[in-house]
Amino acid sequence: MPTAKIRITLKPTVLDAQGAVVARALQSLGFEEVQGVRMGKYIEVELEEGGDTQARVDEMCRQLLANPVIEDYRIELE
Amino acid sequence: MPTAKIRITLKPTVLDAQGAVVARALQSLGFEEVQGVRMGKYIEVELEEGGDTQARVDEMCRQLLANPVIEDYRIELE
Repeated sequence: MPTAKIRITLKPTVLDAQGAVVARALQSLGFEEVQGVRMGKYIEVELEEGGDTQARVDEMCRQLLANPVIEDYRIELE
Repeated sequence: MPTAKIRITLKPTVLDAQGAVVARALQSLGFEEVQGVRMGKYIEVELEEGGDTQARVDEMCRQLLANPVIEDYRIELE
């Protein structure tokens, strides 16, 4: 059964307030080597065999999983 | 500058209510091939050079980024 592994990240130009907070939290825990943090989503979708899986998963991202205005997504099929 | 790419997922035995809702939403949008969805987090951490990066990022996951009781995490360094 194919699995699509999707990583959704904010576009580089979009301010990531949550990431900035996590970066500061890590630094205050003693991880001074942290330069920056970007938070995203990771989604695994289990699929039935058959069809053009890459195109279908791309359509799922555009319709529901990601917000293409402010987010980028990368799809890996396994 | 090294970047750690961290994928955090719920352990397979933990109920993923959000994933179940997203799976149903995809099916009702016409993606009937969807068998299941698991939601997770994706975090990119930019680091300064030097030190045992893998061990440090592992420590960040255990102390702050993940909840090792219910979550698994995978670290890729680039």
